Amino acid sequence: MKPVILLQTDFSLTWGAVAAVKGVIKQVDPNLEIQDLCHDIKKFDPWEASLSLESVVSYWPEGTVVVSVVDPGVGTDRKACVAELKNGTYVITPDNGTLTHLKHSIGIRSVRELDPSIRYNKGEEVSVFHGRDIFGYAAALLASGQKTFEQMGPEYPAGEIRECEEYDLQPALGELSASGFIMTGLKHFGGVQFNITNEEWKKCGFSEGESVHVTISHGGKTVFDTDVRYERSFGYVPEGEPVLYCGSSRHLSLDLNCDNFMEKYGIDTGRDWTVTFQKR
Amino acid sequence: MKPVILLQTDFSLTWGAVAAVKGVIKQVDPNLEIQDLCHDIKKFDPWEASLSLESVVSYWPEGTVVVSVVDPGVGTDRKACVAELKNGTYVITPDNGTLTHLKHSIGIRSVRELDPSIRYNKGEEVSVFHGRDIFGYAAALLASGQKTFEQMGPEYPAGEIRECEEYDLQPALGELSASGFIMTGLKHFGGVQFNITNEEWKKCGFSEGESVHVTISHGGKTVFDTDVRYERSFGYVPEGEPVLYCGSSRHLSLDLNCDNFMEKYGIDTGRDWTVTFQKR
Amino acid sequence: MKPVILLQTDFSLTWGAVAAVKGVIKQVDPNLEIQDLCHDIKKFDPWEASLSLESVVSYWPEGTVVVSVVDPGVGTDRKACVAELKNGTYVITPDNGTLTHLKHSIGIRSVRELDPSIRYNKGEEVSVFHGRDIFGYAAALLASGQKTFEQMGPEYPAGEIRECEEYDLQPALGELSASGFIMTGLKHFGGVQFNITNEEWKKCGFSEGESVHVTISHGGKTVFDTDVRYERSFGYVPEGEPVLYCGSSRHLSLDLNCDNFMEKYGIDTGRDWTVTFQKR
Repeated sequence: MKPVILLQTDFSLTWGAVAAVKGVIKQVDPNLEIQDLCHDIKKFDPWEASLSLESVVSYWPEGTVVVSVVDPGVGTDRKACVAELKNGTYVITPDNGTLTHLKHSIGIRSVRELDPSIRYNKGEEVSVFHGRDIFGYAAALLASGQKTFEQMGPEYPAGEIRECEEYDLQPALGELSASGFIMTGLKHFGGVQFNITNEEWKKCGFSEGESVHVTISHGGKTVFDTDVRYERSFGYVPEGEPVLYCGSSRHLSLDLNCDNFMEKYGIDTGRDWTVTFQKR
Repeated sequence: MKPVILLQTDFSLTWGAVAAVKGVIKQVDPNLEIQDLCHDIKKFDPWEASLSLESVVSYWPEGTVVVSVVDPGVGTDRKACVAELKNGTYVITPDNGTLTHLKHSIGIRSVRELDPSIRYNKGEEVSVFHGRDIFGYAAALLASGQKTFEQMGPEYPAGEIRECEEYDLQPALGELSASGFIMTGLKHFGGVQFNITNEEWKKCGFSEGESVHVTISHGGKTVFDTDVRYERSFGYVPEGEPVLYCGSSRHLSLDLNCDNFMEKYGIDTGRDWTVTFQKR
Repeated sequence: MKPVILLQTDFSLTWGAVAAVKGVIKQVDPNLEIQDLCHDIKKFDPWEASLSLESVVSYWPEGTVVVSVVDPGVGTDRKACVAELKNGTYVITPDNGTLTHLKHSIGIRSVRELDPSIRYNKGEEVSVFHGRDIFGYAAALLASGQKTFEQMGPEYPAGEIRECEEYDLQPALGELSASGFIMTGLKHFGGVQFNITNEEWKKCGFSEGESVHVTISHGGKTVFDTDVRYERSFGYVPEGEPVLYCGSSRHLSLDLNCDNFMEKYGIDTGRDWTVTFQKR
């Protein structure tokens, strides 16, 4: 059975771009199964692309061929690559930071730069749609077995893979205290995730049911400074109240029960949105 | 041939949550076909989840395994269940009102509470993503044949299934008159649906091509009070004009031809948005 | 192997309408594969439907059964048709302008009006959802082989297919000059496409790396009047700067690098948004 191709982009589904990518894949091999990871990654933002891969890829069967196209440098000389993860999954992406998290979690066995001959639409001189003309096409060649991983292009050292600099910011963890930043957020539900894993948080010694003093600052100003209950899930606090919980993407998270934390408090994400947690 | 898994959530497609659910399903059985019902159900709202199932499920082959995850009580002690409908279709969902309409239309043959042992990610202590860890996983076990319906957990009386209280509000129907409330609406196109079925409406005796006096009230105020033509479709009235028609989800509906009724008149939905129809 | 059904609508994915269409297809033949082209075509706008088909259909395998439902005249006496393109691909759609571009690019071999007997839901008198009850159902009959193209209904002359009048507006092309209008735009990324093909543009003699004087007018007012670099891709100009490039849908395009041109300059699309290009 051929592996599934799993697509992630920042194209959105509001126009036919994703469908053009899928059509090219089907032209290579109509038997290939294509699934969507997400097409609403924050535009032009490899950090968000990397976080999204980290939160989804490990739930897919080993050997899946993942394509991620969040590619502000399309058509310039940034590298296009295919990485083989240590679990046998492949990721085809511009080498622009998108592999940051997977490199440190699942790990990378080998990475190759895509050979320039791997190109659909050779006659047409369009340089703004490598999702269709290069990344999707390459994924179809690999997933269909028409090309092996080794035939995708020359290997280069995994240590040379570009990483997002935000990744270097490690949290400070103590006994009943922690600090870090808002790594990402989810505009739809309004929750935020901190750069503290569930596992790291559990070692800090807070207990479910306890209140924790949470302070969020941005640009020198305190934006949120409240006691928040740490619970297993939203429904343990009244509707509209904040709750701290172990998030589904393995990072400590904060949201309101049945309401939108980011909207209500004007919270955004990034390394300049810092947070501290202290025993109440 | 294995049944299709049909997914409904309030997660949206703006992040990878739906893809994580699908990955878990594919890990159970890569041959399973997964389709999307809708992932933009109004957040935290089992009434809308129930209406959406009602308007789509009967168009799918019997035996389809439907998953609905609109679950404000995730991680609390609300029941997780699997219902077998009288047409052989299965619905896996929190028992929180989501089954209200299907219970009264297709009908429920049997319902079982999901056994707590049915759980992906047993090691990881996350309680906020049962769509991935319980509902999607359970659907994969059932659709793949790895578990029978009987093996999903203990049966309980269908009469104990939770229903939304809005369902008790029945319309008043007369000769050339009717009254009810705005049951739901469609922000995209802007039409509203009333709690009056097409069949009930037809018995009131209005004829296509006739005008009907429509009054919509909210909080004691009249919000819309106009003669509206009852027609087969939008194009029988001029662009921008209101039209009353038999809706595609089997309920009497009102919209503007090529325009958005809800936006233009500031209309929302719910039991406090009442409507009366009278012969002009 | 059966052809894929490729669906385009203006329904959006925010409710279950697209899923109802897919369910009907699966009832006809559960083995049919269904893919999405786009469900966010501008509401009620056959011109946008036609442009979207033009930009995607040629990337799909020949023989694909495309369904497009952007249908402001649903339930009225506008024709429902199936066209066989010269490459063997089928398009099932209301005959309302949606075939304009494909007629002139790939070309139409033959067109038939759908026989009124091709109808799902015969008992139910709903006239507002032909996507489900007619177009999707017809596609399933054709793709599954249950009906041949000849059995879909009576042929009529391809010359009678309705075309959007915007198509008649041809650009004026000269030596180092061109003029036309903004044919469409992409709200998500913010770029616009002109009614000048990449091929036509290349004949005007501008060179990559050169600046071009671009003037956009609307209603007698100049809205944008700036020197813009013509480049292969976005990344050749600084972030936030405008760039002119050969677009992925084969038309000359303009956007900002990593920013949204339409939003920033208040640009919209249509024949009354004219543009001129001149040597700087």
